[in-house]
Amino acid sequence: MVESIPLATATQLIEAAEQKADEIDNPMVITVANSEGNLIAQHRMDGAWLASVNISKNKAYTSAALDMPTHDLAEASEPGNSLYGLDTRDEGRMVVFGGGYPLEADGEIVGTIGVSGGEVSQDREVAEAGVDKWNQLVEDGAVDVRHD
Amino acid sequence: MVESIPLATATQLIEAAEQKADEIDNPMVITVANSEGNLIAQHRMDGAWLASVNISKNKAYTSAALDMPTHDLAEASEPGNSLYGLDTRDEGRMVVFGGGYPLEADGEIVGTIGVSGGEVSQDREVAEAGVDKWNQLVEDGAVDVRHD
Amino acid sequence: MVESIPLATATQLIEAAEQKADEIDNPMVITVANSEGNLIAQHRMDGAWLASVNISKNKAYTSAALDMPTHDLAEASEPGNSLYGLDTRDEGRMVVFGGGYPLEADGEIVGTIGVSGGEVSQDREVAEAGVDKWNQLVEDGAVDVRHD
Amino acid sequence: MVESIPLATATQLIEAAEQKADEIDNPMVITVANSEGNLIAQHRMDGAWLASVNISKNKAYTSAALDMPTHDLAEASEPGNSLYGLDTRDEGRMVVFGGGYPLEADGEIVGTIGVSGGEVSQDREVAEAGVDKWNQLVEDGAVDVRHD
Repeated sequence: MVESIPLATATQLIEAAEQKADEIDNPMVITVANSEGNLIAQHRMDGAWLASVNISKNKAYTSAALDMPTHDLAEASEPGNSLYGLDTRDEGRMVVFGGGYPLEADGEIVGTIGVSGGEVSQDREVAEAGVDKWNQLVEDGAVDVRHD
Repeated sequence: MVESIPLATATQLIEAAEQKADEIDNPMVITVANSEGNLIAQHRMDGAWLASVNISKNKAYTSAALDMPTHDLAEASEPGNSLYGLDTRDEGRMVVFGGGYPLEADGEIVGTIGVSGGEVSQDREVAEAGVDKWNQLVEDGAVDVRHD
Repeated sequence: MVESIPLATATQLIEAAEQKADEIDNPMVITVANSEGNLIAQHRMDGAWLASVNISKNKAYTSAALDMPTHDLAEASEPGNSLYGLDTRDEGRMVVFGGGYPLEADGEIVGTIGVSGGEVSQDREVAEAGVDKWNQLVEDGAVDVRHD
Repeated sequence: MVESIPLATATQLIEAAEQKADEIDNPMVITVANSEGNLIAQHRMDGAWLASVNISKNKAYTSAALDMPTHDLAEASEPGNSLYGLDTRDEGRMVVFGGGYPLEADGEIVGTIGVSGGEVSQDREVAEAGVDKWNQLVEDGAVDVRHD
């Protein structure tokens, strides 16, 4: 059994992120994944980098695979630190810079969002717009977590 | 610079395909790609097979990589025929059964659609709903091919 | 030590193949590799299939890796025959349909040519134009095999 | 349909780069790719490193995937900086040292060039000879961007 987000909710999060990306005028690739890191929906905004297709998907994967935001992994992965080399593990899917976030409901991670397309600070800002939308939907009781 | 389908158009094609998938009551994964086979948008409908995430993407890729629908490849790839072994070429991305289609405008392939999630006949029916929507948009002059 | 073909000779073979591809009006991707299957030169003719970039390279690789033309592998790779499954070996680089040929001098394989872009019969015709050019250069004493 | 550089133009850029490589007496591998990072032509000069076949191709890919020269990526990818770990992303195709450059026409990226085979400063010098040739052809109105 996997906790997952309905596609209709995933596209709402993506729309919220796209709106933020338009505001900061930087096209992004946005991925929403389930709690096992598998894709629910991915959109490449017009003009977004090709490399971001892979990176946004893997930010979502990494957040699911390690149950944490990807920006928490950067320092630990540096030379001399405990997880040095993490970025090359798991078939190259680990992303250790910011832009991947878990999506939680009732204290459980039920999905993740990953954004790529600009400076890391921009990626985070856009991803957080998606996370904010998610949290608002949870608060409003509008989220119907799937148990596949 | 790539001729491509705008994201807003890609999601319209996906919606048309999702509607058909709902009609036949079989959740699908639907991918729209550009003319070089790279992803523009992908949606996994609730309950669709996990394997279909990969397969729908690669049907879209294959249609772009060989400029033809994927169902045209099946017979040639059979043992004894000229392209036996094609199904395992190109890093395992070639899909030789139906569900991937080129999207054309003015006689040029500007993108592709790939659908997976059911019997091949169902995949084709759903993908063709996306192709029909595309052709209707082209006829209506509502298609604005991107030059990235 | 690797027996290899000079780049200047490799581009002559590619030109001969391109001329044949133009004659039959089918754009091709043409690769010349050394006796270890590593690339010397590759050209994607205007309009040639994307998938052919990978396939032509791997036809050249396969010919070098097994010291024979790729069309000799089809029958043996069929279900029930001795090499069934060969097409998926060696990291997916084995191509078991025609279009890859060894290039020989003094009874030694010193390189290979791989062509992809049309029907297998067309691929073979174009590759053979490259092989013919090679044999003519060898006969003329115009080939200076490299020993890297 | 992709905006791309004709093969005949790509080989002119490669010749210009090869001439520079001969001048500095360092054999190189030179790749020209389209705007989605897919290969148009690749030449391995006699005596050039085997590893450079992969690296030159991926420098061209990286420039296309992130719309910038590869030398712009080095600093951001260092430990402690925002894109630490970028070098291992995207199936290992990201190259974060110099030698990959976009090729532009009318403000659009229509292709890229990637060079590998020596010190990074040499790779850049040789790649820039290809870029200079491109810019001269654009200025002369001798560039005919393809619409595949």
